[in-house]
Amino acid sequence: MSHNSFGHLFRVTTFGESHGPALGCVVDGCPPGLALTEAHIQPYLDKRRPGQSKYTTQRQEKDQVKILSGTFEGKTTGTPIGLLIENTDQRSKDYGEIKSKYRPGHADYTYDAKYGIRDYRGGGRSSARETAMRVAAGAVARRVLGRGIMIRAALIAMGEVEINSKMWSWKAVNENPFFCPDRKAAEEMAEYLDGLRKSGSSVGATIEVVASGVPAGWGAPIYGKLESDLAAAMMGINAVKGVEIGAGMGVSRLTGEENADEMRMKMGKPTFTSNNNGGVLGGISTGQDVVVRFAVKPTSSILTPRLTIDRKGKETDIRTKGRHDPCVGIRAVPVGEAMMACVLADHMLRHRAQCG
Amino acid sequence: MSHNSFGHLFRVTTFGESHGPALGCVVDGCPPGLALTEAHIQPYLDKRRPGQSKYTTQRQEKDQVKILSGTFEGKTTGTPIGLLIENTDQRSKDYGEIKSKYRPGHADYTYDAKYGIRDYRGGGRSSARETAMRVAAGAVARRVLGRGIMIRAALIAMGEVEINSKMWSWKAVNENPFFCPDRKAAEEMAEYLDGLRKSGSSVGATIEVVASGVPAGWGAPIYGKLESDLAAAMMGINAVKGVEIGAGMGVSRLTGEENADEMRMKMGKPTFTSNNNGGVLGGISTGQDVVVRFAVKPTSSILTPRLTIDRKGKETDIRTKGRHDPCVGIRAVPVGEAMMACVLADHMLRHRAQCG
Amino acid sequence: MSHNSFGHLFRVTTFGESHGPALGCVVDGCPPGLALTEAHIQPYLDKRRPGQSKYTTQRQEKDQVKILSGTFEGKTTGTPIGLLIENTDQRSKDYGEIKSKYRPGHADYTYDAKYGIRDYRGGGRSSARETAMRVAAGAVARRVLGRGIMIRAALIAMGEVEINSKMWSWKAVNENPFFCPDRKAAEEMAEYLDGLRKSGSSVGATIEVVASGVPAGWGAPIYGKLESDLAAAMMGINAVKGVEIGAGMGVSRLTGEENADEMRMKMGKPTFTSNNNGGVLGGISTGQDVVVRFAVKPTSSILTPRLTIDRKGKETDIRTKGRHDPCVGIRAVPVGEAMMACVLADHMLRHRAQCG
Amino acid sequence: MSHNSFGHLFRVTTFGESHGPALGCVVDGCPPGLALTEAHIQPYLDKRRPGQSKYTTQRQEKDQVKILSGTFEGKTTGTPIGLLIENTDQRSKDYGEIKSKYRPGHADYTYDAKYGIRDYRGGGRSSARETAMRVAAGAVARRVLGRGIMIRAALIAMGEVEINSKMWSWKAVNENPFFCPDRKAAEEMAEYLDGLRKSGSSVGATIEVVASGVPAGWGAPIYGKLESDLAAAMMGINAVKGVEIGAGMGVSRLTGEENADEMRMKMGKPTFTSNNNGGVLGGISTGQDVVVRFAVKPTSSILTPRLTIDRKGKETDIRTKGRHDPCVGIRAVPVGEAMMACVLADHMLRHRAQCG
Repeated sequence: MSHNSFGHLFRVTTFGESHGPALGCVVDGCPPGLALTEAHIQPYLDKRRPGQSKYTTQRQEKDQVKILSGTFEGKTTGTPIGLLIENTDQRSKDYGEIKSKYRPGHADYTYDAKYGIRDYRGGGRSSARETAMRVAAGAVARRVLGRGIMIRAALIAMGEVEINSKMWSWKAVNENPFFCPDRKAAEEMAEYLDGLRKSGSSVGATIEVVASGVPAGWGAPIYGKLESDLAAAMMGINAVKGVEIGAGMGVSRLTGEENADEMRMKMGKPTFTSNNNGGVLGGISTGQDVVVRFAVKPTSSILTPRLTIDRKGKETDIRTKGRHDPCVGIRAVPVGEAMMACVLADHMLRHRAQCG
Repeated sequence: MSHNSFGHLFRVTTFGESHGPALGCVVDGCPPGLALTEAHIQPYLDKRRPGQSKYTTQRQEKDQVKILSGTFEGKTTGTPIGLLIENTDQRSKDYGEIKSKYRPGHADYTYDAKYGIRDYRGGGRSSARETAMRVAAGAVARRVLGRGIMIRAALIAMGEVEINSKMWSWKAVNENPFFCPDRKAAEEMAEYLDGLRKSGSSVGATIEVVASGVPAGWGAPIYGKLESDLAAAMMGINAVKGVEIGAGMGVSRLTGEENADEMRMKMGKPTFTSNNNGGVLGGISTGQDVVVRFAVKPTSSILTPRLTIDRKGKETDIRTKGRHDPCVGIRAVPVGEAMMACVLADHMLRHRAQCG
Repeated sequence: MSHNSFGHLFRVTTFGESHGPALGCVVDGCPPGLALTEAHIQPYLDKRRPGQSKYTTQRQEKDQVKILSGTFEGKTTGTPIGLLIENTDQRSKDYGEIKSKYRPGHADYTYDAKYGIRDYRGGGRSSARETAMRVAAGAVARRVLGRGIMIRAALIAMGEVEINSKMWSWKAVNENPFFCPDRKAAEEMAEYLDGLRKSGSSVGATIEVVASGVPAGWGAPIYGKLESDLAAAMMGINAVKGVEIGAGMGVSRLTGEENADEMRMKMGKPTFTSNNNGGVLGGISTGQDVVVRFAVKPTSSILTPRLTIDRKGKETDIRTKGRHDPCVGIRAVPVGEAMMACVLADHMLRHRAQCG
Repeated sequence: MSHNSFGHLFRVTTFGESHGPALGCVVDGCPPGLALTEAHIQPYLDKRRPGQSKYTTQRQEKDQVKILSGTFEGKTTGTPIGLLIENTDQRSKDYGEIKSKYRPGHADYTYDAKYGIRDYRGGGRSSARETAMRVAAGAVARRVLGRGIMIRAALIAMGEVEINSKMWSWKAVNENPFFCPDRKAAEEMAEYLDGLRKSGSSVGATIEVVASGVPAGWGAPIYGKLESDLAAAMMGINAVKGVEIGAGMGVSRLTGEENADEMRMKMGKPTFTSNNNGGVLGGISTGQDVVVRFAVKPTSSILTPRLTIDRKGKETDIRTKGRHDPCVGIRAVPVGEAMMACVLADHMLRHRAQCG
């Protein structure tokens, strides 16, 4: 058991705090003989990296990853892959207020309640900075999955702005700073978020992650369900409060006739006429796209003062200055992809173990 | 690693199929010295038991649980608790159609894709009958948690009928066959579901589970988050497709000002002015109610014929006769409670291990 | 984590006490499609069963195993295999003395120190009766391993009597009640043990387990070493106090020249000129026989009174009457085989997971 | 599951190869609030460090450990502790022979058989250099255990030279380069090993590890036995081929009268008149010293040519030059202590979890 590990056979263990010397991660169980260098990992980190547009925190971190072990002459050896990112922009500053006051919406109070001690610099271990290592691990997972499986994510709602799913373009996702698949919605988001940003506010978002090419048969029944592991993976991302597979929370409104995805043969292969199940039935993949959505709450660090208490139990208020993402959901997009990749790589190996 | 185990320190392992001789479960890690007899478990099983109203399947199972080990003179000994429920109503019948055709919405196709073999009698391992053992394990978990923690669940939406949360009455929950906390909505549900039942259709539902009395500090950061384990627990229940904590998917629409739960002191104790976080911040409990919702899809077994294929890849259709729940979400209510109890008992022990 | 589970991908969880209603076990992770009925398991249980000669306890247990789940029409389905053995000979008796006094060499005192409560009937959970379920699980493991891998064990020393390894005959093992591979030594053991038995004494033994046909490449480095898992497996058997692989404790006396097994080619395949490594190098199998030995301490229940204390901390003495094995090591022979089978089945699946 | 992690609640994950940029380790589950800086760890690493006498390899590694996370202002925070040691003496050399030939007694052949790829530089992952991280983790484990528990180890046999246990002096252990507790035997070892070293040979050794102050009640029955975890821990150290607890393999020769440790009261506390059980009964600690011995095989790298084959299956021979320990068992002494500390810290937390 480990609170800081994820996965069973493709197993990721991370460490590091926001303002410590470095973040690191150990990827264990990776099959041998796969091509893997820093160049396979860095592009995904760059996608998540802060400071790339005015819509994300202006903290400047290069997030340069180093492979410390587990490869030889550019190939994985089957031994654990150690990855390290040194923290470079640990701006020295006065943490006086954060040190003694609990920021509403943050984990300050709960860490203190649990551990009685807390690295308050930038949120310490609870900082979303940890997700950099998830993205790095996800890049390794993609090597395991190979070219046949494509994992992509997009931001489909931000506050009042929702996309029109008929306008979905995967190409568009890479053309705007929101990873939004609907060009028109992206324009609206730009204006909307700019207003929020200037007022020192923040907003939530919904992300959809889609994995194509997953063969039928991955996953497992009961407590090893693909849905279960995907839900844990996404709900484990900072600030996530809801997870849906396929028709998601909406299944509550459907009748049996509407919901059940009917089956047909297409070019000799079983297909489905719809995908309400989100590519998973009874915990096991159907061969359709695996579709997961998750909702990210608004950044809790805002300029408007909020009521709170301090470590001594005195009532007070707090106004969180500093460099923050007005919509932390944006940078959760590559993180969602990474978690999907890690879950699938794990289940690929688990399936191979049991079923050959 | 186990596909059929749940939890780490309070660890539940189940076995058994719908139409096999018995279902069983091993609860490992239970603290010693707790009073535990069948009488502590049976009432929860009775709540979930089928055939109690016209709204649930008419299959008659007594679901009589036997404790096979782990207790002595009515107390837990710290050794594994073996629980067994014998299947009594395994009505002998012709499985011919289910045997060769895949029922849409069921796990028939995916089990075959994974294992190449399938116990087709009543869904085999994928049957919701397995949840009886979850309920039994949950009853043991409640003994671990003690009287200070109260876990309750209610059905808050069924198809078109949603409750008015202002009308919430925990007392009402036990007065109608739907576990609905809104008496008026319960009446609407009765009429609504009766219509669906008679037409051989089915419908989805939303369940809310609330745990009161959980102290601040349970849970863990990163991959051991309480949210993450709750999401896995609920998404692992049969037919669940969405999970929400606190404000859930709705956080996408909130601003930072609206979302962050402010803090005040009340009678010398930290409190919050709202509970959008659902009782968990950064993976760790806040001391507020832990609030989880999940959506259950409509029963896939319906009378209207649906398009499908058979094991040989031939297109056909299927009409699922037999005894089925028109809204399987109803019986998911005690299951949701049980999963909440198991997650909390596990985290209680995990917290005690690390923090004393 | 589970104190009552063994293995990772081929995962065995047991429950049950000596004098409870039943012993049980869940075998999870078994590949689908393997022929498995009670007839595949029972012969191994019969080999371990007590009361078959005057050299083992006269307790009469049929140890009749029932498969409760995980198979369909005689084949494994990939879902968890539930196994049950009902206890039939729970002779009603006065446990008065055992109830209040700690039997030296038994786990009475330590269970009380740990749990503060203890099922004292026949040792409860600490009884070697639990090993029946290991033997059952081992029989399933053998199905996973297939015919290419042969696992055999023999008793090679008992008190003062040691075998002459030059006289080793696997055939002889099944011809005497000690599983002794040396016919002459078996005769000596008969006489020697008869004397001990009559005087109410007991004696220790050494068992050797050999697995042939294990391919090179199973196992893993560091903490997943085959040696490490074999050591845990054997040391986990009741009353075992030492484990050796290959040259074992004797390597302490060897020089580098004597110890290193040299390599040659034989019919196009790598071979070794000796097997000091016991078939494992650096945690990974070499393709040679995997050879493990373990030492079982003498039965602690003897007729000679021993000094002890009671639960209240009063000094006293105890003389353990009842039906006991004079050499519990004899019945550990099939248990050692079973643990070897479980370890190898687990590593077979682990290897397949990572290396395809 | 992880091949590179050890422990359950006090969980250690290591990475790194002999000649890679760095070795690292993540210690997860450490309780918060413990004083921990590099100064608590470094002394143990210095004890294991090579190049300190002519009896160990002349490779010069400073083994300077850095804490990358998990502490704040000199105290543990409850978050994962990342530890790093950079490799500094990666002497550039021609690996030609090792690259293509399998060194007998090493894991060269088995790594290739398993992974099909191998970092041959200094043994890669199979190098005993990994044990530096075990020692670092062990130092953290000692912080968890606190001052009440003392863990010490000594080398008690080397080839032909065995200690006289009556001459045991813990003080002597730190006065000779062999960690030998018998001053006279240490002198004999010096002469004996010098001869072996000069001739380019090597020899095995036996190490005894003793933990004092362990309270009664730690450990667990069946598969969570303290003996079982200790056996796995010690057998997982490089080159170890045998593990004994208490009377060890010798129990085979004992009668029940000789073996069972009798109990008396001493100053109001239960004590034992002997310690054949090595401080563990039925998997649970008795309160006596926990005593474990393990045997380390001779260094496989020797100057005398040995028969072997190359990667292409051609017969050849090999003579291993370079800087090697003539008795690798010497440096296994601090490693054995570290593994004992890790096992005990894990069981301390496991006990606290279940029994409060």
